[in-house]
Amino acid sequence: MPRAPGDGDPVAPVAQGQEAQALLEQSRALVDPRLRAAVDSLPGAIRRVAAYHFGWEEADGSPSSGRAGKAIRPALVLAAARALGGDPRRALRAAVAVELAHNFTLLHDDIIDEDRTRRHRPTAWAVFGIPAAVITGDAMLALAQRLLAEDTDPAAARASARLSTCVIELCAGQQADCAFEDRDPDGVTLDECLTMAVAKTGALLGCACATGALYADAGERAVGAMDGFGREAGLAFQLIDDLIGIWGDPERTGKPVGADLIARKKSLPVVAALTSGTPAAAELATLYRGAMDTPDEVSRAADAVDRAGGRDWAQICAADRMARAIHHLSRAVPDLARAGDLLTLAEFVTRRTH
Amino acid sequence: MPRAPGDGDPVAPVAQGQEAQALLEQSRALVDPRLRAAVDSLPGAIRRVAAYHFGWEEADGSPSSGRAGKAIRPALVLAAARALGGDPRRALRAAVAVELAHNFTLLHDDIIDEDRTRRHRPTAWAVFGIPAAVITGDAMLALAQRLLAEDTDPAAARASARLSTCVIELCAGQQADCAFEDRDPDGVTLDECLTMAVAKTGALLGCACATGALYADAGERAVGAMDGFGREAGLAFQLIDDLIGIWGDPERTGKPVGADLIARKKSLPVVAALTSGTPAAAELATLYRGAMDTPDEVSRAADAVDRAGGRDWAQICAADRMARAIHHLSRAVPDLARAGDLLTLAEFVTRRTH
Repeated sequence: MPRAPGDGDPVAPVAQGQEAQALLEQSRALVDPRLRAAVDSLPGAIRRVAAYHFGWEEADGSPSSGRAGKAIRPALVLAAARALGGDPRRALRAAVAVELAHNFTLLHDDIIDEDRTRRHRPTAWAVFGIPAAVITGDAMLALAQRLLAEDTDPAAARASARLSTCVIELCAGQQADCAFEDRDPDGVTLDECLTMAVAKTGALLGCACATGALYADAGERAVGAMDGFGREAGLAFQLIDDLIGIWGDPERTGKPVGADLIARKKSLPVVAALTSGTPAAAELATLYRGAMDTPDEVSRAADAVDRAGGRDWAQICAADRMARAIHHLSRAVPDLARAGDLLTLAEFVTRRTH
Repeated sequence: MPRAPGDGDPVAPVAQGQEAQALLEQSRALVDPRLRAAVDSLPGAIRRVAAYHFGWEEADGSPSSGRAGKAIRPALVLAAARALGGDPRRALRAAVAVELAHNFTLLHDDIIDEDRTRRHRPTAWAVFGIPAAVITGDAMLALAQRLLAEDTDPAAARASARLSTCVIELCAGQQADCAFEDRDPDGVTLDECLTMAVAKTGALLGCACATGALYADAGERAVGAMDGFGREAGLAFQLIDDLIGIWGDPERTGKPVGADLIARKKSLPVVAALTSGTPAAAELATLYRGAMDTPDEVSRAADAVDRAGGRDWAQICAADRMARAIHHLSRAVPDLARAGDLLTLAEFVTRRTH
């Protein structure tokens, strides 16, 4: 059985994790002041909701001791620029724009998915109401675009076009995700589900890497390959995330056992299982149509995903997507030794266990 | 007593109205095919919601016989470019972007304000649900930015920066409007209310005019003056709209008598009345705090706004703002004879009676 990223040697990931943490910290040291300055330029009431969302302030405006996000996307922008021989500082403004666009999606997705908790705190809409959270997301997207429109770098127009196109794809992914929820358990095909996951998760990681490439004056081919690298790594990440949503350790995830099953999520391993044509698929579909409110039923559903081949498929698929990601990367950066930071970041996101 | 725009000679406005209608039709003939092509480039499910919102399709996807909006903003973009000696066709893509940005705000504002009807049809969120309408608005804003980012015209970057800045101001206006609703009837100052109205209504009309100027290669001073023209005309429009919301003919507005009073709107004439320090102000505040559900109470509230000076103030202020608008315009286009189309459009929006 192939090992999923995350099941590896218990020593190596820790060292890699530390290296990735150091990279993320370096990136945050460069990006954070500019991100804060950009957010501070927003009108008062909107700035306050944004500062809360980023974990910088409490709901009452007092400084927060809460930890902000990992900011993996701006780190990818800078690492991609560096891997292609560019000066990452040139791409700083674009890195901030990508992080703002990401947080715009989080603000709106939390409303759409009715999620009340993010990073162990109540979501912005749960604190400030839906209107304020919709408006703050809108303003954050406009701010991202303003940063690029005001960037005099020759790469800015192409970066702006890529980011806009990517946001439309993110919207399509979120729209598909919503539509799937209303369908019958076995009414979603695996292809549809993969397309949705690439749009919802892969597209912005791809855009981050491609943006870094643009600011290193890379050619269209290398920019496209960087986009492919981010997309495939993003899909690998999503597959691992979906496995954690079923078999993750509640101690580490902070969620109950089988959280995604209880929520009836049509995640990738679940759809792979439901569409497998096995007896276990029928069993799972019946459980998904029913109440499934006892631990025994949740455990039977997880077992059915496993027996229907959903777990194996997701693990193989994640490994395959990481291989494809590295293949793309090797086309963008023929001397892979120069792409060490990108590989470290990609492995970090796909090995996460919480 | 000064006459409000709209109270004028009953003959002239009709002629002017016809001229404006012809201008709007010419503009739509240029803009519509590009607007439709842009919307058609959106992913399927999102395109469908957008096509419904624009009045091109029914909810089931069949062609709609419903009338689309007047599309005043793209007409302003083209007229401003023409007034400054530019070729309006150069500004077509930007005109489409401005119209998309406007419709993005309509989609989200209808959700935020819980409005269930627009242009005599159910609003998009009322038909497709809040998630689909949030997502479609997001995609429409991203599409507006993509059009400008992909525009190779030298004016495009400045137009993109202006539009993004304008969207942030629109967000601030909408946020302020929401915040006012929660405040005590006399807890909102007239200055706050004017700032909100400029942000919510004036900013995008100003941006439309400034965008046209940019595509005519106008200098920063003329661009700024065009922005001022649109802003002031927009505020005049808002004042007239607020008067119609209280004293408009239900036959023409399609809304009950005193619709804005019943909804407890803190519109400009109402806030002017509430902050007037007159006995009628206190009377109005009491009515705003109470039930106000009988026609007699609504009529007493309208009368109180009038006696407190809110009606006169709004009419004088609207005339004053139109004068300021024309002053700005004369700085942008010293030979006002060349700005005839812009004046026609501005007078059309401020003379509307429904």
